Amino acid sequence: MSPGRRRRPRAEGPGEILVVGSVALDSIKTPYGNVEDALGGSASYFSFSASHFAPVRIVAVVGEDFPERHRETFQSRGVDLSGLETAAGQTFRWRGEYTVELGHAITLETQLNVFSTFHPRLDPKHRAMPYVFLANIDPDLQLEVLDQMEDPRLSVSDTMNYWIARKPDRVFEVLRRVDVALLNEEEARALSGEAQLVRAAGRLLEQGANAVIIKKGEHGALFRSRDELFITPAFPVSGLCDPTGAGDSFAGGFIGWLARSGRHDADALRQALACGAAMASLAIESFSPERLVATTPGEIEERLTTLHKMVHFSLTRPFEANS
Amino acid sequence: MSPGRRRRPRAEGPGEILVVGSVALDSIKTPYGNVEDALGGSASYFSFSASHFAPVRIVAVVGEDFPERHRETFQSRGVDLSGLETAAGQTFRWRGEYTVELGHAITLETQLNVFSTFHPRLDPKHRAMPYVFLANIDPDLQLEVLDQMEDPRLSVSDTMNYWIARKPDRVFEVLRRVDVALLNEEEARALSGEAQLVRAAGRLLEQGANAVIIKKGEHGALFRSRDELFITPAFPVSGLCDPTGAGDSFAGGFIGWLARSGRHDADALRQALACGAAMASLAIESFSPERLVATTPGEIEERLTTLHKMVHFSLTRPFEANS
Repeated sequence: MSPGRRRRPRAEGPGEILVVGSVALDSIKTPYGNVEDALGGSASYFSFSASHFAPVRIVAVVGEDFPERHRETFQSRGVDLSGLETAAGQTFRWRGEYTVELGHAITLETQLNVFSTFHPRLDPKHRAMPYVFLANIDPDLQLEVLDQMEDPRLSVSDTMNYWIARKPDRVFEVLRRVDVALLNEEEARALSGEAQLVRAAGRLLEQGANAVIIKKGEHGALFRSRDELFITPAFPVSGLCDPTGAGDSFAGGFIGWLARSGRHDADALRQALACGAAMASLAIESFSPERLVATTPGEIEERLTTLHKMVHFSLTRPFEANS
Repeated sequence: MSPGRRRRPRAEGPGEILVVGSVALDSIKTPYGNVEDALGGSASYFSFSASHFAPVRIVAVVGEDFPERHRETFQSRGVDLSGLETAAGQTFRWRGEYTVELGHAITLETQLNVFSTFHPRLDPKHRAMPYVFLANIDPDLQLEVLDQMEDPRLSVSDTMNYWIARKPDRVFEVLRRVDVALLNEEEARALSGEAQLVRAAGRLLEQGANAVIIKKGEHGALFRSRDELFITPAFPVSGLCDPTGAGDSFAGGFIGWLARSGRHDADALRQALACGAAMASLAIESFSPERLVATTPGEIEERLTTLHKMVHFSLTRPFEANS
């Protein structure tokens, strides 16, 4: 997306998307219920979300204990698992809890297991993918992926406070190399040192980012590049259930639409932001990615229509004589 | 605005607006500077903001110490002060401080002075006004004003946590009687008992409000009625200086545009929300209402254009064959 970068001619149909991230077994408790060893992980949420828009291939690792039924869930959405390595040992596990405000997870336990020694190895098919999402894994692994990619049309990264605290320089290196960096509010504040989010985004651009998206939970998301600033509200869910995976599902809708449309102009980016908001809202209406897997084109389009209606106004010039 | 209510035919030109609230002397400290005994108060910020759109009349009280130069500031914007009572004693004073995040004021001192015995007395001219804003004064005073009004086309209230904590029933009574109730995030959460703001707005409607606007600071504002839900982002200010009066200035832009346009349809309400966001952004770029007084039609329209550009996207149907 950067100006002057060589781009391959656009292929027919939606561009394929590579995601490198975690596939995990999550145990989650919220005020609305709980699950044990449910399918989770950033690459999982991302894939289910993006798969509604374009073909997705996962590069990740699971342990020998990874249930066959979870593979079937991926297959039901046409997600390619040829890059899902099975390593000796246990699958990455996360145990978390949300309090009644559902704002932030309290991590009770993280078992990296097979993830602790994971290094993404991309085969030629993966290297040639036009769209790539680097989920919130170690920035060193994100850089390993970027080094292996041929020349993606669009690269997007995510991160987490854990890495910002431990490897800020590497997080910045990723930020400078990708086309769009996704962060949540706290991450944007921590990384930029700015409290106010539009300014935080501006500061990250000064620090070398090409474009950033700040995810603001119930307040929506903002996109900022040198030329553009736009904002989408969150889709107002009535049945908020489990916020896990909202950010990855947002990323799936965002990249999904860009890959499907093959466009990266300002209007496509705005539409992509709305697709992100729609998919995030679906993710949080059920435990695990159930709702994301089951949703339909009609349902997604309905949410886009609602979001459009929520923000659209006809521009007025209040002080013209005929106003 | 309520369905079935009798409405007078619309007069020519912008409708006149009555505001009942405080006119104060503010001493404020922020990380960017400080002022002593500056012109402040909810009615002041509201008036300066709304005066760019429509004629404004104030009903309020000041003490004998109220400086003549502040009256001149109101007159420079054509604000009618015939309802500004001068009582024996000192003007209402507020002393506050903002920390670096500029989110919330810490009140250091409040001297009610002449405000402590204030009862708004409306003359026939005030009673006949088509638009009325009840700023964040005691809900009992707000009800006194409503009782005196003839049949306003649109009534809007504001409140504060102080009254929600002390007189929740009266705050609810105001909410049920006005067309639109303005609240900030904390007030909406406190009054509705709901943490998530779209739900908080929904709960307030269930509790009898006709329509609510929740002001979310840097995250913008949301409007919710039985039929409508829309959202405006905050205008991204580069030179945030002093957040005092942002909410009242928002209200001034909101009611100002409705009074100017004479329309209350969904599109006018959306435009009004954007006008509110534009005026709030101007208010916070200087200490005291300086910037609001000095701003120009061109500057306001420029901010509306920016806000429009920030949120607008062309609605796509991602899954249509021709997408």
